[in-house]
Amino acid sequence: VTRRRIRIDLAYDGTDFAGWQVQPGLRTVQGVVEQALTRLDGDRPVRLHGAGRTDAGVHARGQVAHCDLSTAEEDAELRRALSRILPGDVRPLALSSVAANFDVRRDALEKHYRYRIDRSQAGDPFTLRYVLHHPQPLDVDRMRVALALLPGRRDWSGFAAAACTVQDRVRTLTRAEFDGIDDGEAAFDFRGDGFLTHMVRNLVGTLLEVGRGKMAPERVVEILEAGDRKLAGPTAPPQGLCLERVVYGDERGDPS
Amino acid sequence: VTRRRIRIDLAYDGTDFAGWQVQPGLRTVQGVVEQALTRLDGDRPVRLHGAGRTDAGVHARGQVAHCDLSTAEEDAELRRALSRILPGDVRPLALSSVAANFDVRRDALEKHYRYRIDRSQAGDPFTLRYVLHHPQPLDVDRMRVALALLPGRRDWSGFAAAACTVQDRVRTLTRAEFDGIDDGEAAFDFRGDGFLTHMVRNLVGTLLEVGRGKMAPERVVEILEAGDRKLAGPTAPPQGLCLERVVYGDERGDPS
Repeated sequence: VTRRRIRIDLAYDGTDFAGWQVQPGLRTVQGVVEQALTRLDGDRPVRLHGAGRTDAGVHARGQVAHCDLSTAEEDAELRRALSRILPGDVRPLALSSVAANFDVRRDALEKHYRYRIDRSQAGDPFTLRYVLHHPQPLDVDRMRVALALLPGRRDWSGFAAAACTVQDRVRTLTRAEFDGIDDGEAAFDFRGDGFLTHMVRNLVGTLLEVGRGKMAPERVVEILEAGDRKLAGPTAPPQGLCLERVVYGDERGDPS
Repeated sequence: VTRRRIRIDLAYDGTDFAGWQVQPGLRTVQGVVEQALTRLDGDRPVRLHGAGRTDAGVHARGQVAHCDLSTAEEDAELRRALSRILPGDVRPLALSSVAANFDVRRDALEKHYRYRIDRSQAGDPFTLRYVLHHPQPLDVDRMRVALALLPGRRDWSGFAAAACTVQDRVRTLTRAEFDGIDDGEAAFDFRGDGFLTHMVRNLVGTLLEVGRGKMAPERVVEILEAGDRKLAGPTAPPQGLCLERVVYGDERGDPS
């Protein structure tokens, strides 16, 4: 049987998923999509590889995954069939045949994560599942001082989860920004070549402590230098976080 | 005990409510908010009157309600307390003391309803609860011909639910529009001085039949002239519909 490599771009509402990664007995994005692909590939087991292993409750507008399929069905029809089978909270945005050596993880040049905050007093019932509601005042200038200290190539151990098992914790953060109006929606944006477990949520939790005046902006430098997670703020809750985009080079299967 | 009249502006995600109106044993917006207000008013029963009786599953960004309260608590603190008590899917956007004769229903000059449609192939997992997913082609020009025939002061019996018990079915529709891109989000907008039960959803269901080429645009005139619901299209599903705004005259308690 000839197999071909497929790239699938996915958007999902993470609320009702126990994260990306397959876990026995739990509803995960990887599990649900693998199940659908297996059905479309004549019940041959399909393994799906994701560019980012999002946590439980974390969303994606631009997750990218790859897998190998045996079906001769053309890409457009395959996307439509996948769209029909998958539930409404995980959607195949695009599907294309790519080079057999394309690898979503190894070939990713940059990932873009956004963490959304609702600063309104009342809160918005329509974004409840996708933001952290934070009506308390935030000193944005202080947060921006801290944000400006973050970009660069460094060891991020101080912002990694205790459970993070990766040995090499050196990553390059290319952008760290905060935008948003006083009494409405705001967001942190982070772009980099890779992120450790809980890294974005720990950064946000720390930056919010800075914004509330409970930590000095320079604390982020101490955390990075000491590599000590205990110096950082709490892990921000998952629902505000979204994997917006994974960037690949032109020849690496990017359909756009 | 001195009572004062209060105007409350509400936003809610209608997904988990059995509509606005109190029904025994069901979770309704009126019921949930009345319960909270009763608690804030020293356990005196509070009756809340809404400008629009939204159906089960229909949303509101600008519902307006009034009630009479005995508490001496000032408006701003009352809004904060109500915000703390109410669940995340119904939010008090504003609360203000108004003239004792202000009536949300009688004094409403205009209501604005929007019906959102997602025309993308894949669908958007983040708006799933707030749109009708309609990836099939729609002839927008045909729908606009039909929309242009709607505004005016007339009897709307042909678009009212069979269950509608109102005697006088004459209403003035001031605007009926469709906007949206081919492969993305689109919406019908309706403004008028009042709407009958299911009227917007029956209009949308009929306009979609026109857009799909299954009804002639002029059918809407036949439906209006015959006053016969059976000539119209099916009732569009509730989740796409939202009560966007209720307009009052300056002296009628409008806080803006």
